[in-house]
Amino acid sequence: MSKVIIIGAGLAGSLLSTFFAKRGIATDVYEARGDMRKEEMSAGRSINLALSDRGIRALSAVGMDDYMLKEAVPMYGRLIHPVAGSTKLLPYSGREGEYINSVSRGGLNEALIDEADKYPASTFHFHERCVGFDCESGEARFRNTETGEEKTIKGETVIATDGAGSAVRQSMMNRGVERFNYSQHFLKHGYKELRIPPVSEFKGEVPETANGEFLLEKNALHIWARHQYMMIALPNFDGSFTCTLFLAFEGKDSFEAIENGTWGLEKSSRGSAQMNADSEKEPRENEDPKEFPSSSFRSASDPRSSAAKIPAVEALIRFYEVNFPDAVLLMPDLVEDFFDNPTGDLGTVKCFPWNVGGKALLLGDSAHAIVPFYGQGMNAAFEDCRILDGLIDSHGLEWETVFTEYSELRKVNTDAIADLAVENFYEMRDHVADPVFVRKRDLETKLEREYPDYFSKYSLVTFREDIPYSEAQRRGNSQNEVLMKLCEDISDISELDMDEVMAKVSDLEY
Amino acid sequence: MSKVIIIGAGLAGSLLSTFFAKRGIATDVYEARGDMRKEEMSAGRSINLALSDRGIRALSAVGMDDYMLKEAVPMYGRLIHPVAGSTKLLPYSGREGEYINSVSRGGLNEALIDEADKYPASTFHFHERCVGFDCESGEARFRNTETGEEKTIKGETVIATDGAGSAVRQSMMNRGVERFNYSQHFLKHGYKELRIPPVSEFKGEVPETANGEFLLEKNALHIWARHQYMMIALPNFDGSFTCTLFLAFEGKDSFEAIENGTWGLEKSSRGSAQMNADSEKEPRENEDPKEFPSSSFRSASDPRSSAAKIPAVEALIRFYEVNFPDAVLLMPDLVEDFFDNPTGDLGTVKCFPWNVGGKALLLGDSAHAIVPFYGQGMNAAFEDCRILDGLIDSHGLEWETVFTEYSELRKVNTDAIADLAVENFYEMRDHVADPVFVRKRDLETKLEREYPDYFSKYSLVTFREDIPYSEAQRRGNSQNEVLMKLCEDISDISELDMDEVMAKVSDLEY
Repeated sequence: MSKVIIIGAGLAGSLLSTFFAKRGIATDVYEARGDMRKEEMSAGRSINLALSDRGIRALSAVGMDDYMLKEAVPMYGRLIHPVAGSTKLLPYSGREGEYINSVSRGGLNEALIDEADKYPASTFHFHERCVGFDCESGEARFRNTETGEEKTIKGETVIATDGAGSAVRQSMMNRGVERFNYSQHFLKHGYKELRIPPVSEFKGEVPETANGEFLLEKNALHIWARHQYMMIALPNFDGSFTCTLFLAFEGKDSFEAIENGTWGLEKSSRGSAQMNADSEKEPRENEDPKEFPSSSFRSASDPRSSAAKIPAVEALIRFYEVNFPDAVLLMPDLVEDFFDNPTGDLGTVKCFPWNVGGKALLLGDSAHAIVPFYGQGMNAAFEDCRILDGLIDSHGLEWETVFTEYSELRKVNTDAIADLAVENFYEMRDHVADPVFVRKRDLETKLEREYPDYFSKYSLVTFREDIPYSEAQRRGNSQNEVLMKLCEDISDISELDMDEVMAKVSDLEY
Repeated sequence: MSKVIIIGAGLAGSLLSTFFAKRGIATDVYEARGDMRKEEMSAGRSINLALSDRGIRALSAVGMDDYMLKEAVPMYGRLIHPVAGSTKLLPYSGREGEYINSVSRGGLNEALIDEADKYPASTFHFHERCVGFDCESGEARFRNTETGEEKTIKGETVIATDGAGSAVRQSMMNRGVERFNYSQHFLKHGYKELRIPPVSEFKGEVPETANGEFLLEKNALHIWARHQYMMIALPNFDGSFTCTLFLAFEGKDSFEAIENGTWGLEKSSRGSAQMNADSEKEPRENEDPKEFPSSSFRSASDPRSSAAKIPAVEALIRFYEVNFPDAVLLMPDLVEDFFDNPTGDLGTVKCFPWNVGGKALLLGDSAHAIVPFYGQGMNAAFEDCRILDGLIDSHGLEWETVFTEYSELRKVNTDAIADLAVENFYEMRDHVADPVFVRKRDLETKLEREYPDYFSKYSLVTFREDIPYSEAQRRGNSQNEVLMKLCEDISDISELDMDEVMAKVSDLEY
């Protein structure tokens, strides 16, 4: 047997190589970037990720479940930061041991490559970018990113773990596969990564809430939900937090309104095009600088932030002072990070079929890129690997049978998590601060504490790795409808008879 | 002002050129094919189309409403052909003057080019294929299909009426437009065009139902609905009918099952792969040839049908004898047509945005390709032209404003007709022969006769060119739900009090 070609040594490709190696299937893994274990690089993707039960189950299957014990930071709930007033923790579950784990994308990826590298059956080839796939012959074409040299490779079969912009999927779409169903949909919001440093690095006043090296509660996912936009922060192992601001690209509250300096100025409701014209007539110097204390920020004249203009910096600071007053005090690099870091897109990709006969299979983001709001992108990709591996148990190396059955089993579930992730964006942004929603979460936590059989929608998706995503979605939605209705008509969940509530939920059909 | 570039001299592009010429806006229309007025060619698309009120309104606006008086064949309803028993006409409307028109795609397209050609402001360039569009510079690139010469052209703006496979849309998708939303979805069914000749050309026994030159009722759209598949036939001006068979590509009842000769053999339920293996063991010669009389068909040994093998021809004839016993008698060229004509895909394309600032706009199929089951593809494209023209009245040549407003107005409506068309596939295939559905259509016809304010969903979409598609969809769906429920519990619509029914329908909110 010739080797299986894996395209992409990201999270999915590296893990899959280990799965295959453990069965004695040799793989050649081609990766467009250099070896991240040797080179400093940005993956161009989020810095940390939430590893949960579906991902852990797949890691366990290759003996890597101890990874998160060493490198992960447990997060037991969402810690809600209102504009004013005290924070509130909404636990992810009412049960012990049900939590999610903040892990470093780079750290985990390196560990996965290291693990695969222990097996002689796994061979990694770096700086080899896949630039095409021939759906007829099954040959993949690679270009070396250092030498420019091109080569064509044909293996036993190809597994494309080359991400949301997959070159293999592109070839399938460009007439490689007849009647290829495809969709790409983008949110109107983008994201920007920012940072809260660890205590030892922080020059400002350390708040009372600091916990060891962490300026904020360490074991939580922090959320600043502001309806039209939100910021979240995940703890890193080194004591820092990676913050992600989710904000519309255009409109009244947007990256554009910050970048053109109009955010928060009364006139901004007239639209940004008009504003730009206005701002030429009414120079910004007339405004009272005391309203926008910026002493704790690096100046926009910092050479690394040369792209930022004064009005934009002022708008950014206004935006943060008004919306995130507690967080802004902990973000000394806000201005620099904001103007230096790219603004990312948030898109969902769906397609079908995923395979070209037995010649190739799309797996992970290449088949189903999703938005990050359920923390399931990596977990879904790891689950992909585990399920594909299980089908090799059943069918051996009959690739076409394995790929077809895998696709049929899996498609309905990756569609479900794609839709759940988009819905959760609106839930996190709009409802996390809504009193009915908060009561519903309290009720769910209480149910989970008192009834071992009760699992909230979030728990079904996140902690029940034995239940497919599509079932979690159906069951979770039915439950939510009932519970939200109950919580609308009460002022406190103590008014509810818990046995009655549980009976209602148990009667649901899904 | 430099000229407006229109890409594609199909139905939409030719009509748009006339709309523009009437306002004195000069256009250069680039068409990949030759001049269809001088060259015999197949458009690679359906031979006839159903022109209805939305299309007619747009033709009227440029003074072409007399076209369908000369060249169209009115169709007053669906004529349902059961496998056995008599046919039944389901009128499209209970009102006089509400009917659709079968027109020749080629004939109408030539008339549209001729009309535009009357204006010096319209210039057509044939054999010029658009091979790319630069979303930065606004330049379009064309390759002459005869000389191979390439040139780059920049006009006042570009309107891409280059169809479902639009080169301009491709450039927008390939990073030309940020966060370009796109989807393409295909039905599992394909289509094949076949033919019923006019009486004067027919060598067989002319049936009693013949009407002048027409072997079937002339003024109807004929439907042979068979649940998993169906055939339709539209009358042509010359007395022939163009039949379209809609059938799954794969599976028990499929193009594949006919082409590999397995259709209708008991064993075919075991799947076609298995069948091929079996058929080598059990040669087909043993079967009784009397079961499959093929004397009225051209032989498969006809050189033009050389691709067809005997088992495939036999399967085709079995399929037609069993499912379309009345039609097959009128289709002497069935075997030749079936194996010579291509099998077409049925897909829906949606995307957004439709414009690149003021530099380009997608219009017609390039923006919203739909399946043909509501007979609205061309009508929607003509409505596109009329609405775009109206916005030039409001905004002049402020292209970005015109294009943006056009897209915002229009997108919700083309999404609606796209979804309606897919739904109508299932309605035509599955429900047209269902007794509850037939009663509901009878009830709707009666309502339309007795209540001038009542319009069925079909009438709202087809005859109410003053109502947007999205409103027709909402209103039609609400009505349908009520009427189907009423028709479930009765055996004849005479049991219903019509005033009560009408009151129920009028109470609906949409």
